Amino acid sequence: MAERLHARRARSNIPVTMGADELPATLRAALVGAIGERNLLTDPDLKASYEIDWTRRFHGRAAAVVRPATTAEVAAILRACSAAGRAVVPQGGNTGLVGGGVPRDGEVVLSTTRLTGPCSVDAAAGEIVVPAGTTLHQVQEAARDAGFDFGVDIGPRESCTIGGMIAANAGGVHVLRYGMMSEQLIGVEAVLADGSVIGRVPGLRKDNAGYHLAALLAGSEGTLGVVTRAHLRLTPAMPERAVALLGLDDVEAAVAVMRQVRPALPSLAALELILAEALDLVCRYAGVAAPLRGAHPVVLLIECAGQTSPREELLAALESAGGLVRESVAADDAAGVRRLWRYRDAAGEAINAAGVPHKLDVAVPLAAVPEFVARVRAAVAAAAPEARVAIWGHVGDGNLHVNILGLAPGDAPIDHDVLRLAVELGGTIAAEHGVGTQKTADLPLARSAGDLAAMRAIKAALDPRGILNPGVVVMR
Amino acid sequence: MAERLHARRARSNIPVTMGADELPATLRAALVGAIGERNLLTDPDLKASYEIDWTRRFHGRAAAVVRPATTAEVAAILRACSAAGRAVVPQGGNTGLVGGGVPRDGEVVLSTTRLTGPCSVDAAAGEIVVPAGTTLHQVQEAARDAGFDFGVDIGPRESCTIGGMIAANAGGVHVLRYGMMSEQLIGVEAVLADGSVIGRVPGLRKDNAGYHLAALLAGSEGTLGVVTRAHLRLTPAMPERAVALLGLDDVEAAVAVMRQVRPALPSLAALELILAEALDLVCRYAGVAAPLRGAHPVVLLIECAGQTSPREELLAALESAGGLVRESVAADDAAGVRRLWRYRDAAGEAINAAGVPHKLDVAVPLAAVPEFVARVRAAVAAAAPEARVAIWGHVGDGNLHVNILGLAPGDAPIDHDVLRLAVELGGTIAAEHGVGTQKTADLPLARSAGDLAAMRAIKAALDPRGILNPGVVVMR
Repeated sequence: MAERLHARRARSNIPVTMGADELPATLRAALVGAIGERNLLTDPDLKASYEIDWTRRFHGRAAAVVRPATTAEVAAILRACSAAGRAVVPQGGNTGLVGGGVPRDGEVVLSTTRLTGPCSVDAAAGEIVVPAGTTLHQVQEAARDAGFDFGVDIGPRESCTIGGMIAANAGGVHVLRYGMMSEQLIGVEAVLADGSVIGRVPGLRKDNAGYHLAALLAGSEGTLGVVTRAHLRLTPAMPERAVALLGLDDVEAAVAVMRQVRPALPSLAALELILAEALDLVCRYAGVAAPLRGAHPVVLLIECAGQTSPREELLAALESAGGLVRESVAADDAAGVRRLWRYRDAAGEAINAAGVPHKLDVAVPLAAVPEFVARVRAAVAAAAPEARVAIWGHVGDGNLHVNILGLAPGDAPIDHDVLRLAVELGGTIAAEHGVGTQKTADLPLARSAGDLAAMRAIKAALDPRGILNPGVVVMR
Repeated sequence: MAERLHARRARSNIPVTMGADELPATLRAALVGAIGERNLLTDPDLKASYEIDWTRRFHGRAAAVVRPATTAEVAAILRACSAAGRAVVPQGGNTGLVGGGVPRDGEVVLSTTRLTGPCSVDAAAGEIVVPAGTTLHQVQEAARDAGFDFGVDIGPRESCTIGGMIAANAGGVHVLRYGMMSEQLIGVEAVLADGSVIGRVPGLRKDNAGYHLAALLAGSEGTLGVVTRAHLRLTPAMPERAVALLGLDDVEAAVAVMRQVRPALPSLAALELILAEALDLVCRYAGVAAPLRGAHPVVLLIECAGQTSPREELLAALESAGGLVRESVAADDAAGVRRLWRYRDAAGEAINAAGVPHKLDVAVPLAAVPEFVARVRAAVAAAAPEARVAIWGHVGDGNLHVNILGLAPGDAPIDHDVLRLAVELGGTIAAEHGVGTQKTADLPLARSAGDLAAMRAIKAALDPRGILNPGVVVMR
């Protein structure tokens, strides 16, 4: 399949432009015609916030930022950029962590944050239709007003957009109960590189009329199309919550406790791991005391949620795991639940405040989690003795976030060592944050030659000039 | 995108062969080399059962039937057929209903029923790995032996294979609780037309390392690849069941009852509609009395399932809908549950025994179900007064199976009228049975020009010579 792809690329007679200092006059005129002067940003000050990511690790220069407000405007922009062979970087709330949503060198950034409008809830069906620029928080509010909730929750909920969450196939703290973003999709509308509009909103929960393009877009990171609208399933409201933090001796104990309590907790909503270094960063950052009296190497957060209080169920399950739990604290009132979650939620902000971290998001089979943690620590200690490793994550899914602080610019090879280790233990190099520009070169670790060739063929089929997010996911 | 596709097809210098009476000697030799004489069937008697579907409506001639036992054998067959430009029809348990798994004219049928071997259950994770030729019943037994169940259940469970169920994205009676086949997939291994192997088994529940090829294969009906192995999630065992059949005056009442009881039934596992004509067919076929004393135009089946008995929950919910229910019967013992389900389960066999039905599987929004039923009946009465319409289906998903008996061979236009009506009411022409050869020409009713072009582009990218199931899903 590789040969076909090369043949096709060679026939493309308009090279994709990156690195040019200015937009050519014809492209500029077409973009102004599509969205007006006002929504074509070329002033460096106005472009600046679109050119750097939240961690400050990934940044580049955009030739322009375009801010469409409708599907038709997105289509007109992509037609114009296709005709000019100009690379486009789609960007939602710019909360990505793998460099997939910021420009590298002279692309047009297509910001979807103006694709907004009413959130339309169908309360009888438990579904919602929203434009792609709607934030997660807005969806949560609309859902809660109608007596529902939304199945995916991630930290930057005030900023991240539904379109970006679909493109990234966002995960978060409730995947073990409700699945990832792809599992919330009833219908998706998107614009392909040539400006054609695909998908269906509203969609249907059961629809086998042809290929499931929405399922392919989920996790494609803006390389196959730009999501413009979505039809999502809502979940039943679970207003009653109970949270416990358990102090444990080691990661083995966390895995053992999880295996023990999980079958006894139908109301389980989250299982999060916080290793001591991460907890320490949070306490310093937030200026709060540690949640437990003792200094435990490992803290496991367990959340249960239901329509009636899951408190008794949680306490009974913890009792059954008693021998492994050195100390615990629990809450089932709103303020207490918020306070305990803060030790996990603030980890991202805390580490960003302490420096510019290398952030690696991997998943391994549950049984391999202890070995993975031990070997990551050893590898970093050997390669960069001054570096600090802070690990937390959605351990219920085998998903860990490895954060490394204090690396010198030349220390990037440690990233690859960590990813290689995850694969060696039966895991993946990208669990929920995606591939972005960060891991594109590492993708052959996780995907076979057949997979990579099929991905390149699909990319070439839907974006033959390669204008959509070049350098992300698919290697040229 | 259409132009690109044509350009690519024109460059293919080996036309796909159909309609030839014999395999060319080189292809025959290559196939024998791949799987041995014994598993290359060319004797008409041996081929016969692979050449006609279960309803006897769809049939054709196969040049040969090949029966590989391993992924490597599937790859060798597809490489040989690609080289010879010979069309291949993948076939699982041959329980499809839309003509997507039987030959049309001279293709090679690739039967996956010998892709068998141990079912490997991971009880700690609640997951199973199986070869694609494993039947649904075998998966259910392996799951139940380990204290779990499988989320998808369909009537022909003794015959249908996991590979075929993935290719068809099978639905069935529990979709409202556990989702369709695509939602059970953790990893899928498949072979593309050129013999390359894609996918990963075992997979990971959270894996965003590149495009989700498994999600694209689900529902692609053997046109993009041949599934060879699968890693599936299991569901918690729900041994306690309660079922009720409700006699109602009309379809409006069924929709009203569903809206009323659904929020009060967290243990809901199935919501099935059986209209009087279908119930009558079942009673005659099975030689049993009707389940209710009165002759009601509409019967609604409600099933609840849990780890503890859902009987009280079901009865309380029914009480709340009392004004609409003319008569009801319920059971929560195994024999009684089986007996009540039989009135729904036997509908397919019953109608096949009565003739060769036209079977149409559609979904419409719940609110449109009553209008759809009324207008289908009126349309059939007007177009073919002697025909009989029997309707049943997974009404909890808005999914209805329209079965028309007694149509003359020239009456196929009524099929298109029914599909057009579903789309007019906001629905789809294929809810869970797929497109097959039956509905390929109707696909433009349900999918936009942009979608169809994208589907053709993906098909051409992964199967550039078009050897995999030509005529199914994607129009040439």
